Parts: sequence; structure tokens; C-alpha cells
Amino acid sequence: MRRILLSEKDLPMQWYNIQADMPKLPPPPLNPQTKKPISADDLKVIFPISLIEQEISTQRWINIPEEVLNIYASFRPTPLYRAIGLEKALQTPAKIYFKHEGLGPAGSHKTNTSIPQAYYNKIEGIKRIATETGAGQWGSALSLAGALMGIEITVYMVRVSYDQKPYRRIMMETWGGKVYPSPSDKTESGRRILRENPDHPGTLGIAISEAVEDAATHKDTNYALGSVLNHVLLHQTIIGLECKKQLEIAGDYPDIVIGCCGGGSNLGGVSFPFLYDKIHGKEVRVIAVEPSSCPTLTKGEFRYDYGDTAGLTPFLMMYTLGHDFVPPGIHAGGLRYHGDSPLVSQLCHDGLIEAVAVGQTAVFESAILFARSEGIIPAPESAHAIKVAIDEALKAKEEGKRKVILFNLSGIGFLDLPSYEAYLSGKLTDFEYPDEKIKESLSQLPEIKL
Amino acid sequence: MRRILLSEKDLPMQWYNIQADMPKLPPPPLNPQTKKPISADDLKVIFPISLIEQEISTQRWINIPEEVLNIYASFRPTPLYRAIGLEKALQTPAKIYFKHEGLGPAGSHKTNTSIPQAYYNKIEGIKRIATETGAGQWGSALSLAGALMGIEITVYMVRVSYDQKPYRRIMMETWGGKVYPSPSDKTESGRRILRENPDHPGTLGIAISEAVEDAATHKDTNYALGSVLNHVLLHQTIIGLECKKQLEIAGDYPDIVIGCCGGGSNLGGVSFPFLYDKIHGKEVRVIAVEPSSCPTLTKGEFRYDYGDTAGLTPFLMMYTLGHDFVPPGIHAGGLRYHGDSPLVSQLCHDGLIEAVAVGQTAVFESAILFARSEGIIPAPESAHAIKVAIDEALKAKEEGKRKVILFNLSGIGFLDLPSYEAYLSGKLTDFEYPDEKIKESLSQLPEIKL
Repeated sequence: MRRILLSEKDLPMQWYNIQADMPKLPPPPLNPQTKKPISADDLKVIFPISLIEQEISTQRWINIPEEVLNIYASFRPTPLYRAIGLEKALQTPAKIYFKHEGLGPAGSHKTNTSIPQAYYNKIEGIKRIATETGAGQWGSALSLAGALMGIEITVYMVRVSYDQKPYRRIMMETWGGKVYPSPSDKTESGRRILRENPDHPGTLGIAISEAVEDAATHKDTNYALGSVLNHVLLHQTIIGLECKKQLEIAGDYPDIVIGCCGGGSNLGGVSFPFLYDKIHGKEVRVIAVEPSSCPTLTKGEFRYDYGDTAGLTPFLMMYTLGHDFVPPGIHAGGLRYHGDSPLVSQLCHDGLIEAVAVGQTAVFESAILFARSEGIIPAPESAHAIKVAIDEALKAKEEGKRKVILFNLSGIGFLDLPSYEAYLSGKLTDFEYPDEKIKESLSQLPEIKL
Repeated sequence: MRRILLSEKDLPMQWYNIQADMPKLPPPPLNPQTKKPISADDLKVIFPISLIEQEISTQRWINIPEEVLNIYASFRPTPLYRAIGLEKALQTPAKIYFKHEGLGPAGSHKTNTSIPQAYYNKIEGIKRIATETGAGQWGSALSLAGALMGIEITVYMVRVSYDQKPYRRIMMETWGGKVYPSPSDKTESGRRILRENPDHPGTLGIAISEAVEDAATHKDTNYALGSVLNHVLLHQTIIGLECKKQLEIAGDYPDIVIGCCGGGSNLGGVSFPFLYDKIHGKEVRVIAVEPSSCPTLTKGEFRYDYGDTAGLTPFLMMYTLGHDFVPPGIHAGGLRYHGDSPLVSQLCHDGLIEAVAVGQTAVFESAILFARSEGIIPAPESAHAIKVAIDEALKAKEEGKRKVILFNLSGIGFLDLPSYEAYLSGKLTDFEYPDEKIKESLSQLPEIKL
């Protein structure tokens, strides 16, 4: 069987909260001013109560609301594929499975969390959600959720992406999202920067500041984040929960679970249900794959840092390259983040997740092999996971072992085709961040003692 | 149930050949030189024997080869959706169902025929297939099939699309297709035109000439077409066959089946299995939706005409606006064809299929409503079907009738987002072709007596 389907009745009814089982919980986020643990009240200004509760909950299973399940059911359960074509191309004895999260209407796994986030905001009376977006994956997933839930979406999109990547912007607008190039004249943070430089290209940090300010200064408006936070990873666990059922049908259990890792949401989503087993004694390796140009887990430090560049968010305990680290413009825009989810960071620190960094030319080489053997053109982010799945399958071939490998195909690459063009025409280069630059960026972080 | 899934074992094992049941078969294609019925030998130069046999077969069921079934099974059966969100938005008592053909790896229904076409060519020892493409849907579906079947694909792409729509070209190249802007210097037809005008923007007619010449002058190379011909529509009937099983699960039978119609392949695919019932006495309406700017079925004449602009292909008996009719550059590029499939034309002529023409601003208005209520961004071609499904649902509301409406969502619109931008920014205009222009174009057709 090449494609393992589940029926609607197999759709998981609960998300899995790994905070119930982690050997060690991450230390709490700190208020950026007082450097004391942040209170639920601090967060209420920009988040609905239900999401704040999920953020700090240690309850193992959290019910998925019926209205969310109904929308999930329009594109979930997603299929699990056995990558027969890729196995054949590699002549490996390994069995390679991948979960296809690119079949939802926005083309990536992001809708798994945008839909519940829009839902909880709506039932708490919020009329509008403000968010930031870089390349546009998150902004489009949230705009879609807004359309389906009947809640307005305002997206601050980094100006250089707004100008150079019109497809994602148009997608958001098609779903009714209001998109502003950031820095914009809609917020004080934006206006301040525009006064200094009217042609400022924008950064994700500035866009976050604008969205947070918009949410904090409008009573009917909240803020939403597409990765990093605990509740976001919680919503993504539906990926791994479905995988477990599907692999059971196939009569397999993975030796290795692989996901690409930027903020950590798709990796957490596919792996946490398997980490539950690992914590309880089962043998399974979980590998986070990051770009060598933004090697947070492999070369960063595990310490408190701001979640954004501007230093407006709480301090989070995580692997970080320093909040003013500016990764080069690699094509997997979703993996260009200086930090990492505190949950993934803690699990990595405690040896439950391994991390590996790969260069982008090798990633695109793997993406092309995958496209030609499996037929699916992957998003460049997802292709990082493919690269390491291939490496592991070739290792299994050398060792003559019939390993079972599972990776998450977090999205399709239809809107990323220009990066394929860059690769095919030989214009893509690798970039490894110099260790000294990382050291320098880290040396500027404030020391925080709990 | 919002999404009706079939399992792999429900995948149809045979295509349905409507030539077995048509009250009247279309008159045969004629050799363009002799104007006598074309022989199988004439066709062998550019088509594999299996496809020629399918073209003229009157056998009702034709087995789908196992290797084709295996690849179909990686993305078929596709889901049938109940459009609950759209019904709610329209407050209609009608039940609206749509078949989602945009989930395959190339984003449209075209892979249903590109895969068997590549297969039959491969088993008959052909090493390479040449084809033409306008906007790129067909070229990409065939490039994908070539990658999966291990057969080389050469695509002659209309130069203006090649230059202005790089996404589809890159997609073909990612799957290993060789893409040349047409007119090219690879063929005598192309070189002749380039000598006169080195900056010629190209037409679909020229691209067809180049692909046919390439196939006819290379022994190991054949030609392939993505619509119009009988065998292409045959392969697409898997759409309607699956729909029938899925509607049975839902306990419904359609009052109306709707498909957009350019060459006719997706309309034939979704409707022929229902036309079988209609021919055998069941009541069901089938509606072909075409753009008002290219009103082949609604304003054309039923007569012999060339399939291409240049006059190189056989004469086909069909509704046509005249082979030198140049429709304006509407955004649904897949519907800009002067003629129509002979099967669809005959069925239309015999009153088994109705036709309606709609303007593109109304089409995009419907597309936006669909995107915001169902979450899926449709291809502009498919949005023509949506527009008429909405019209019929509103009519049912007026009449207070609980009609069952089925339409085919032939593809998604990720690569068509610029046309959404044109609509959202008010730049889209309607165009109705003046009757005199059509009359003039038709008056230049050669008279053919059988």
C-alpha cells in the first residue's frame, strides 16, 4: 500500500500535551521588563484565556473543540505515504514513510494551529487577530482560518517579501486578510522606523512589534503566533497522532522520526507522540533538521533570549543564536529563526531530540530526487527533512538494515518554484555561519539569573 | 459528512467509454490533405497503437493497466466534498457537491490522462514524448508522468507564457521536462517563423506544429495531447466513476452535473458516467460552462474544422469558432480553445449536454465566495463551474427545491494568483465576442462534404 488513509472517524479527538510527560519542563517565560516569570494576566492583553491555559497546562490530553474538528475533517486525516519510488531510486532496504501535510488548502501544516487559534479567539469575543508574516506561510494559514471562522485578520508582512513575493500576499487577500507591508504607518513602532528610513525593507522583528502593538492597543483585537509557543506545538501533535494510527495499519513502528526545524512546530507535531513512547522506554530516534546557515540547535546556546529581534516579547528559555542574529536569505524562509521552541529546546537539551544541520544545495538535490521519484514537489523547508531521510536510508543500505524511517512533509513547494529555478540554474550557494559571528551575537545577550 | 473518501480498493479498475452508448457517434476525423477518413496508419507516426485503438473503440469498459492504477493510487480516489460552507453562504436548500481534482501533485485533473499516455508510449518502446503547452497545466502534468514512467518529455511552450509565467515552466523542469519557448529553433516550423520575426510571441497553433513535427521526424518520439481527443476523455472518466460511488455513499444522485469546458476533458470526465444513465432513461442535466469570450458551444457552428490554428491536424467534427479565431487573453487560459472535443460536441448537438457562457468578473466573484466559504482557492477554469453551480443553487432556492448539484473542481489556483490580484484590484474586465467576428471567422472555413 502506497497511501495509507484514515477515515473521518479516525480523526484524533484530542491533542497530545508533552508537558505531561517531559522529564524536565522548560523554565517559565520571563517578563521582559521585570525578568520575573510572566503571569497569565500579562498575556491576557493579547491572547485568549483558553490558549494561555493550554500554554501552561500539564494535562496529557486536551480535547479538540467540535467546531475545529469539523474544519479539520475537511482536509484531515492527511495521508501517510510509503515512499516506494524514493526507496527504489536509493535502492535501500529501509522503509521510508512520509506524512503529507501539504494537501490542506493553504499548502502547509500551519492550518492545524491557525484554525483552533481563530476558534478560541472567536468564542472569547475577539473580532480581529493581528499577526506578522515573513514569507507568508503563516499569514495565509491564518487568513484562511479567519475566513472560515468569521474573524478579521490583519497581517504585517515584511516589506521586502510583500514587494518580491506577491503570490502569498494575494493568497491572503483572496481569503479576505488585510495585508500591510511592514514597517507600516498603522502603528507607532512602524511610523517611528519610517520616519528614520521611509524605504526600510522591514524585518520579522519589526513586523512582530507592529502586530503586538496593534493587538495591545485595540480591545477587540488579539495577537497570534504560528510557531515556537507550547500551544502551537500542541495543536500540531495531530500530525504524529495520525501517523501512529497509520503506521499501525502498515504494521510498522519508526526507528527514526524526522522533521525540519525553524520555530519547531512541524517537528514537535510529528514527533511528540513518538517521544511519549521514547520517554516510556521505547527505542526511537527523533531528528531535527535545520539549515547550516541558521544552526540554532547545533551551534546555538541554551539560555534565555527574546523571541523577537526588537526585544518586545518575553524571555524564552531556548537554544538561540542571539536575537539580533540575521541569517542569510536562504530559500527555506520558514527556517530562518534565531531561536527555537522552548519545548523542542528542552527536549534537545535533555537528549531526547537529536539535531543536524544541512546545506541548501544538498537539500535541493534531495528535493529534486523526491519530486522525480515520488511526484510531489516539496516546500524547501520540508526538503530539509527529506535530505536527512535520504541520508539515513543510505546509511541503512550500507549497514544492510531494514530501518523504518518516517519524515514529515510539512508543505508543498508550488509557491517556492523560483528557488527551484535558482538551484536548477546553478545559482544556489551554501552558507555556513562562522562560529565567531555566532559567539559575538551570543555575547551581547543579557545575563539572566532566575 | 463533509468529505466523502473512498479507499484504494474502491479505485475504478476500468475507464468508461461513452462511444459504446452514444445515440450517434461523431463522424470520423479526416486527413487534412485528402479530406478522407484518417487511417490508423496515418496516426501511428505520432501515437502509440494502444491509444489509437482507444480512440476508435466502441467497447464500453476499458481496463486500466496495473502500472497506471498503482500511480493513480498515490493520489486517487480523490475526495468528493459536500460544500456545506458554500450552501450556508447562499442559504440554499440545494445540496452542492464537488469533486476535488486539484489534490494530485500537478494540481489539476490533467494527470489522469498524462500517466496512461506516458505508460502506453513507454510499453511500445517510445523514449520521448513531445507536446505543446499554453499556460503550462498540460506540460506540467505530462512532465510529472514522464518522471514517474521514466520517459523523456519535450514541451514547446508558447513564448509569451514561457517569458511571463515562469512558475509552470520551472515546475516542468523540476520534474525533468525539457521546455523550449515556441517558436523555437528546434524545428523547421519554428525556424521558418523566427526567420520572419525573431521576436514572435508564439501561439498554441505554432507550438502544436512544432511538437507534431518533432514527433513525426524522430522515430523514438511520439506526440501527446491533453484534451479534445476521445482517448483523453476516456481516461478522465475515472472522475465521474468515483463520483458515482461517493454519491451513493452519501445517498444522493445529482439533478445537475457541471463542468467547465475548454477542450472538454474535465467535463467529459465528470459527466460521461452520468450520461450513461441519462441515455438509459434517468433524469440528469449536464451543463458545460465556457467563457463568454470564447463561446464555442454557445455561439460556434457544428462542422468540420482543424484542431489547431495552423491547419496541420486532421479535420475534426466539432463545435468551432473557426481555427483562426483568437480569443482575448482571459485568465482561464485552459478555456481559450477555438474548438471542442468531438464527443462533447456531438453530445451537445444531440441535446444530451447543455452549454452556457459566463463572463470572467462573475466567475472570479464566485471564486472568491468559494475560497472564503470552502477554504479552497480554485483555478480560474474550475471557477466557471462554480459560478454556474451557484446560479443553479440560487435558482433552487427561489423555487424552494432541494436540488442535488455536482460540479468538478478541476484544479487549484495557487499558480493563478495574479489573476485573483487583477480581480481584487478591479482590473478585470468582461469581454463578449461580437457575433459578426465569429461569423467572419467561420465563413473562412473550407466546406467539407463527406
